[in-house]
Amino acid sequence: MTITFYELAGATDALRFSPNTWRARMALAHKGLAHDTELCRFIEKDKIAFSGQKLVPVIRDGDAVVCDSWAIACYLEDRYPDRPSLFGCDVGRATTRFMNVWTSTVLHGALARLLLAEIHANLHEMDKAYFRETREKRFGKTLEQICADRKGNLASVRQLLAPVDATLGQQDWLGGDGPAYADYLIFGGFQWARAVSPDALAEPGAPLHAWNERMLDLYDGLGRSLPAKNE
Amino acid sequence: MTITFYELAGATDALRFSPNTWRARMALAHKGLAHDTELCRFIEKDKIAFSGQKLVPVIRDGDAVVCDSWAIACYLEDRYPDRPSLFGCDVGRATTRFMNVWTSTVLHGALARLLLAEIHANLHEMDKAYFRETREKRFGKTLEQICADRKGNLASVRQLLAPVDATLGQQDWLGGDGPAYADYLIFGGFQWARAVSPDALAEPGAPLHAWNERMLDLYDGLGRSLPAKNE
Repeated sequence: MTITFYELAGATDALRFSPNTWRARMALAHKGLAHDTELCRFIEKDKIAFSGQKLVPVIRDGDAVVCDSWAIACYLEDRYPDRPSLFGCDVGRATTRFMNVWTSTVLHGALARLLLAEIHANLHEMDKAYFRETREKRFGKTLEQICADRKGNLASVRQLLAPVDATLGQQDWLGGDGPAYADYLIFGGFQWARAVSPDALAEPGAPLHAWNERMLDLYDGLGRSLPAKNE
Repeated sequence: MTITFYELAGATDALRFSPNTWRARMALAHKGLAHDTELCRFIEKDKIAFSGQKLVPVIRDGDAVVCDSWAIACYLEDRYPDRPSLFGCDVGRATTRFMNVWTSTVLHGALARLLLAEIHANLHEMDKAYFRETREKRFGKTLEQICADRKGNLASVRQLLAPVDATLGQQDWLGGDGPAYADYLIFGGFQWARAVSPDALAEPGAPLHAWNERMLDLYDGLGRSLPAKNE
C-alpha cells in the first residue's frame, strides 16, 4: 500500500515552501518510503477534510491518517522500526522533541517575521487573501509591518541559529554521525527561506552553511529540487 | 579507585551554586559512581592546576583527568557503559549536545544577567574581588548595572524556558520516561538560581515547576541538599 503525502505548494507546483511539510518529506525519504504526493493550496481544505483538521502535512498510510509533522515522524518511527531510525532511541526521541518545540515556536516565529511578506508574494493567487487575513490577524499587524525591519529580522534569525551553528562546529549532523530527524527540523526552516527569500540564513564559511549544503545533497538532492531564491 | 570531584563553593561549604558542577554531580549520581569531593573557591586555582586549566568541574578517575562538564558527561558515558546511560544512544548524545550548547550560551547568558549580583553577595570573601573584576570585564558593566532590570531579566529567562516548559508538558523528563543528561543540563541552571536568588524560575503550576520538584527528589534528594533562597 503506497503512502499518500498531502502537502502545500505556492504559485507553482514546484514551490513547496512549507517548513513542516519538508520535515515530513525528509522523514519519508530517511525511511526510504515511496509515496504519492497530493498538492493542496491553503484554501483547499476540502482535500484534507478526511483528516479531521485543516493543516498539512497529512499522510494516509493504508487505514492510518496522521496529521502534524511531529506525530508523522513518531508514526513512521513506530510503524517502520526496521527502516533507518529518525531518533536513535527513546532518549533521542525525547531530546529531539525539545528541538521540535524550540524550532516550531522560537525559530519559526522569527523566520515568519523575516519571510511572511515574501511568502505572500510567492503564493498561488487563490491563497493570497486567505494568507494575508489569517497572518495579519495572528500578528496584529500588516504583513508589510511585520517584515519592515528586514535586516533586524535576519539578524534575529541568525542569532537564534548561533547554537545550531556551534553544535555543527562539533559534529557533522545534528543527529551526530549521520542525519536524523533533528536535522530535518532545522532544515525545514532553511527550505522555507530557500523558497521565497533572497537572503541566505547561514553565512558562507559557517558550519551551518556547509551543513545546509550536505542536507541539500541528501536523497539524490531532494532538497535541491526546490527552486532557490537565495542562490 | 574512587573518583575525586573538584567543585566550587560560595560563602559556606554547602553553597554549591555552580550550574556546571551540578551537571557533573548529577551525572555521577546517575551513573551511581561514588566519589570524594574537593572544594575550591574561584581563586584557589592551584587546587586544580594538575588539570592544566582553571575551571571546575574537574574529575580525577585513576589516571584520567577530565575537565569541562560536557567532556565529563561523555567520559562517564564511555568509561562506564554498563551503568545507566546519560544519552541513550549516539543520536541522543548528538541532540543532547545541541541542548548543551543552547543551555551553556543562551540560557546561562540570560541567567547570568539575572543572578550575577546575588552570586557575588553569596561568595566567600576571598573570591569577591576576583569575581567582580572578571565578570565586569566580560560584560563591560558593573554587576549592579548588569542586574539592574531584575523584572526584565527574570522575564527573559522565563521566555527562554518556554520551550522547555512546553516539552515538559508532553513528557515527564527531558530524557523522556526518566531523567537523562538533558535534564541535568537545565537543572544546573535551576540550582544556580536556587542557591542565590529569591526568585523561582518556574511559575507554580507550570510543568517546569513540577519537573524541578522531581529533579530535586532524585538520588535521595541530592538537589535539595543545596540550601534554597527561593523557597
